[in-house]
Amino acid sequence: MTEPATGIRITVWNENVHERTQPEIAAIYPSGIHGAIADGLAALLPGATIRTATLEQPEHGLTEQVLAETDVLLWWGHIAHDQVDDAIVARVQQAVLGGMGLIVLHSGHFSKIFRTLMGTTCSLRWRNEAERELVWTTNPGHPIAHGVPSPLIIDHQEMYGEYFDVPQPDEQVFISSFEGGEVFRSGITYRRGLGRVFYFSPGDQEYPVYFHPDVRRVLANAAVWAASDADTRSIPQVSNPARGWFVGEAKGQAR
Amino acid sequence: MTEPATGIRITVWNENVHERTQPEIAAIYPSGIHGAIADGLAALLPGATIRTATLEQPEHGLTEQVLAETDVLLWWGHIAHDQVDDAIVARVQQAVLGGMGLIVLHSGHFSKIFRTLMGTTCSLRWRNEAERELVWTTNPGHPIAHGVPSPLIIDHQEMYGEYFDVPQPDEQVFISSFEGGEVFRSGITYRRGLGRVFYFSPGDQEYPVYFHPDVRRVLANAAVWAASDADTRSIPQVSNPARGWFVGEAKGQAR
Amino acid sequence: MTEPATGIRITVWNENVHERTQPEIAAIYPSGIHGAIADGLAALLPGATIRTATLEQPEHGLTEQVLAETDVLLWWGHIAHDQVDDAIVARVQQAVLGGMGLIVLHSGHFSKIFRTLMGTTCSLRWRNEAERELVWTTNPGHPIAHGVPSPLIIDHQEMYGEYFDVPQPDEQVFISSFEGGEVFRSGITYRRGLGRVFYFSPGDQEYPVYFHPDVRRVLANAAVWAASDADTRSIPQVSNPARGWFVGEAKGQAR
Amino acid sequence: MTEPATGIRITVWNENVHERTQPEIAAIYPSGIHGAIADGLAALLPGATIRTATLEQPEHGLTEQVLAETDVLLWWGHIAHDQVDDAIVARVQQAVLGGMGLIVLHSGHFSKIFRTLMGTTCSLRWRNEAERELVWTTNPGHPIAHGVPSPLIIDHQEMYGEYFDVPQPDEQVFISSFEGGEVFRSGITYRRGLGRVFYFSPGDQEYPVYFHPDVRRVLANAAVWAASDADTRSIPQVSNPARGWFVGEAKGQAR
Repeated sequence: MTEPATGIRITVWNENVHERTQPEIAAIYPSGIHGAIADGLAALLPGATIRTATLEQPEHGLTEQVLAETDVLLWWGHIAHDQVDDAIVARVQQAVLGGMGLIVLHSGHFSKIFRTLMGTTCSLRWRNEAERELVWTTNPGHPIAHGVPSPLIIDHQEMYGEYFDVPQPDEQVFISSFEGGEVFRSGITYRRGLGRVFYFSPGDQEYPVYFHPDVRRVLANAAVWAASDADTRSIPQVSNPARGWFVGEAKGQAR
Repeated sequence: MTEPATGIRITVWNENVHERTQPEIAAIYPSGIHGAIADGLAALLPGATIRTATLEQPEHGLTEQVLAETDVLLWWGHIAHDQVDDAIVARVQQAVLGGMGLIVLHSGHFSKIFRTLMGTTCSLRWRNEAERELVWTTNPGHPIAHGVPSPLIIDHQEMYGEYFDVPQPDEQVFISSFEGGEVFRSGITYRRGLGRVFYFSPGDQEYPVYFHPDVRRVLANAAVWAASDADTRSIPQVSNPARGWFVGEAKGQAR
Repeated sequence: MTEPATGIRITVWNENVHERTQPEIAAIYPSGIHGAIADGLAALLPGATIRTATLEQPEHGLTEQVLAETDVLLWWGHIAHDQVDDAIVARVQQAVLGGMGLIVLHSGHFSKIFRTLMGTTCSLRWRNEAERELVWTTNPGHPIAHGVPSPLIIDHQEMYGEYFDVPQPDEQVFISSFEGGEVFRSGITYRRGLGRVFYFSPGDQEYPVYFHPDVRRVLANAAVWAASDADTRSIPQVSNPARGWFVGEAKGQAR
Repeated sequence: MTEPATGIRITVWNENVHERTQPEIAAIYPSGIHGAIADGLAALLPGATIRTATLEQPEHGLTEQVLAETDVLLWWGHIAHDQVDDAIVARVQQAVLGGMGLIVLHSGHFSKIFRTLMGTTCSLRWRNEAERELVWTTNPGHPIAHGVPSPLIIDHQEMYGEYFDVPQPDEQVFISSFEGGEVFRSGITYRRGLGRVFYFSPGDQEYPVYFHPDVRRVLANAAVWAASDADTRSIPQVSNPARGWFVGEAKGQAR
């Protein structure tokens, strides 16, 4: 029943450091990781408005206006997490709590924004030996799993393994295994405030994972899922209501 | 981002006993509780196909074909739970596990289908003294809560109170209070197999709750939420795969 | 802080069919699977009272009195699920809802009692080729994981793989991988009524898994965790309380 | 089955500002809120070691050594949240992630440590008009609810109401209602890292709630529940394991 994602406004954020400094990475992702992700989303969500933003731009490309016009933000970072300005992190957090969707990718597990939203170390096991990753669906009725084969097969990928130090997910969508025998909760959802958060671990700068058609399907599904139903953003706030105000207004009488 | 529910096929099931045997109930629901619910859904989901089914029909109106053509089934029952044929209950359960959405209403907490899907007694406290019910949103970013005021105010309603003996919900969307001071988890979601289940407690044969515009909004939102993304129904089955089949097929080599 | 399990009363139930009909299974489990499990629990929980019960006994060894004297019931079954009397299944369900702990083992995923409590098909993938199973801890602060290495290594075991058609667990404690690449949610918890339920997949009649010291540690931890804090069993029931009774009693005034 | 909490080491932290600056509060809590809480715990947990710590002490009384010797920390704060040193907050967070239990009380919902662990605003509705609070148990099999009446009745209390902006709890133990009709998820649990977190909203400086025997029972139960099973604290860390190390060690052969 998923309708075409007409009108979803997506911003793909990437630190964009590997691609600018390592030719071998640029060869894999000639238009950047953000470019590859954006291309994949554009192909599957023809009605969506997709832009990219990167670390080196003013305000990392994430101005108040950009966030106000973003329904879903994707986040890729790895070696420059500490270069992200705390004020921008706080701004993104506010947007999420107010209803913006957030999709955190791969090494973004250690980004400031993800750790801030989780409250934990977000640490894990890892090993980079081009292992085969199998991504199994554990929630086949979930919108994000729609049309995704189980297992989704990635021939070469960095290993991420448990224990993954995150809060218990609201929904467990995918679990991966690797050739070494490790497992990883590779697709998990959370709600934070009014915003929906999806973490998806496949994807690394050294492997062309973001060109994989099934991975692209996951990201497109997740973008549709993460977009809020609300037209406006509304961050939860403290309120001090009068006693029984609704009684009086609704019934015209005291109790 | 919820798109118009073009194409959702909804079946509203009602035991339809009170309305046929008690004139005072028929006066409140002249076209039956199912009729009132169907009218509300039709007004809010103009693209949907809506039908009703009742206990006294052959196979309770829930033939294999009807279920095959139903994306979301709403269920209202009260005094005739034990008249529902076990074979039909099993059929509905299979449909849910295969991906059909199910919305269980009010006294349907004691229906065979709900108890079968929950595995618990589904018992609760109750008191019928026309108390005011306040339905508070505890998950304002959830699609089912979209456009619903908090509190949603129902002037007169039967009280349902904790302890409600159900499994821990996957998502807690609404919690109600009553004039007597009781609380109730009045809007909760579950996944069972590939199907999405929503239980919503407001609504009783003695009060015109299903004409309440906010209640109708909840039911319409829930119908959109509960409808599967899949085109076909697929009940989970045991399988006995060959060892490493995907390795061989995907990579053309043994390991 | 787990204290010695003084006083926990444990019943280990086993269908005990393989051991009586297949000499090669009896050679692996000379005192039955139930005997091996009971021995492991006795060694780790010296204060516990441990008994066994099997299918061929009157009432399958699960009389009302036995259940009343059981804090935690372990369940192993495989080829004789359909020989378990429905009345006994209902009796066990009532005990669980009233507060008895239940630990369902391996092929017990298809037992009547587990399917009744889950409401789903409980189907899965399987393959019996003596594969290595690695059991990873995904909730290292959980009492059931206390003292269990991650990974727990089982050299030869039947493969169980996703999709495992169960409701979303309340807690995800262990996830396994197998040599073929499959993953499985091998240690999961649920609450049903007042009872605590733990499903643990390692363990098969063809492999001596229940002699594995780490597996025995898991089962002992789980028994302590699953035992209720209450002295008496109390199944949730419907009640029809008077309006505001507690107001009057507590405050001596009407409203 | 809960054993006497022999050996649990509890630290009760309180900002202790109201009591030192407002005589009317000191009259309610002559030995401070921390003193009242500590007295209640001592009476119910005779084997426990209980100390207190307050804001005005060096390092707020929460030195590395104190935290190392604390199994469960209770936290009460209100008007001085911003005076808590960020370094101490980080230290407490590390202790929780490593396995220390944390019980956050009432207005502690806005403490730095709770907001850091939750990642959300933790905002809510409130109104201070000495309303009756009814605390209903929604998880009667949970250890924290053991021996607690439902409803637990507090004659006069500050109202806290939904929407409470916190992540979906791992377990929903209590829900409160107030005379004004509001509801609140007043007893909820989370795991963060290896630590267990319980938030409990009853308790305010203007009402003698911490002398209430049922509230004291909740806090004692929660302390036992929150204490880790582990003897040592272990914060999750990144690791970079060798490929298939356990295969080689366990089986002495390559694969």
